[in-house]
Amino acid sequence: MVAELQGLRVMGIDPGLTRCGLSVVQGGHGRSVLPVAVGVVRTPHDAPLSVRLLRLSSAVEEWMDDYRPDVVAIERVFERGNVSTVMNTAHAVGVLMLAAARRGLEVHQYTPSEAKKALTGNGRADKRQMTSMVTRILGLAEPPKPADAADALALAVCHCWRAPFIARTAELGQASRVRGGTTPEKTRSGRR
Amino acid sequence: MVAELQGLRVMGIDPGLTRCGLSVVQGGHGRSVLPVAVGVVRTPHDAPLSVRLLRLSSAVEEWMDDYRPDVVAIERVFERGNVSTVMNTAHAVGVLMLAAARRGLEVHQYTPSEAKKALTGNGRADKRQMTSMVTRILGLAEPPKPADAADALALAVCHCWRAPFIARTAELGQASRVRGGTTPEKTRSGRR
Repeated sequence: MVAELQGLRVMGIDPGLTRCGLSVVQGGHGRSVLPVAVGVVRTPHDAPLSVRLLRLSSAVEEWMDDYRPDVVAIERVFERGNVSTVMNTAHAVGVLMLAAARRGLEVHQYTPSEAKKALTGNGRADKRQMTSMVTRILGLAEPPKPADAADALALAVCHCWRAPFIARTAELGQASRVRGGTTPEKTRSGRR
Repeated sequence: MVAELQGLRVMGIDPGLTRCGLSVVQGGHGRSVLPVAVGVVRTPHDAPLSVRLLRLSSAVEEWMDDYRPDVVAIERVFERGNVSTVMNTAHAVGVLMLAAARRGLEVHQYTPSEAKKALTGNGRADKRQMTSMVTRILGLAEPPKPADAADALALAVCHCWRAPFIARTAELGQASRVRGGTTPEKTRSGRR
């Protein structure tokens, strides 16, 4: 399973309606991750909400057709800040997840602090630290801009690194279901 | 324009992921509104969020193919109550609006109090009053159930009654833009 995950192609999404960060990375050997693509989709403020969602949907579908990711990692939206922005972002997440589901792709949600912890070891890392880590991990010539693009890359890297553990936990869960309960041996071997 | 609106076919949506109310009504002469269809789409709690959104999207697309509405009226989501429910509803609104936009249908959002005021004259009407008005307006043999179905019908009726005013306001806006400003005569005639 870990060997298969080494070639895992992950699309990372920092969701938004005004600006949506999109990225694609490819898992390499061990913890190495290679950058494939990064960009930002924008939709016009003055267009009706439904038209903006259609534009975002078309853009992400085009990315999925072009880069054929195996899985999608997207930031979990919280109720904080401007109410209308939060709602628009939540609507955007709906169409982004739908695009993944149409292709049979699994979607994993990560909170900002989960992504920060995965990349820097500190769930409260600031933007500068995160951008610096993303630049270093992916071997980029310069820091990705704007912030939405860097966040999208960070989410994709976060999933690359966590996927082996998610897969192992799922295997364990499946094994324990097949065996009719978690056996101490299985639990121990899974924690190696 | 009012003559055209008499045949307006409106899809009303009470958005939700666990239960989503869908309805279609047809505007008749004056304030008469005829019921066409009403129902509730459910998605399973235990399915992944992206799969639930796909199920909802497929269901609403099927309704749109079957009933060919001219326009969609949907309840505006607020940040209140259980956070995860609000977010799921907001994600659902995203895919519902996307389905409309894919068919070039305009989407109008109404707050619960706008719908209550339109149907009962009271923005704080309770569920019982609203259900009773929906039943009477549409000439139904019995009150629609569950609540999501009744709410979906109320939103559709609300749009039928408000559409002539929205159209007149839009005409006014267009006229004033064509003329390079709002002329007093045009404004007066629009307020008749």
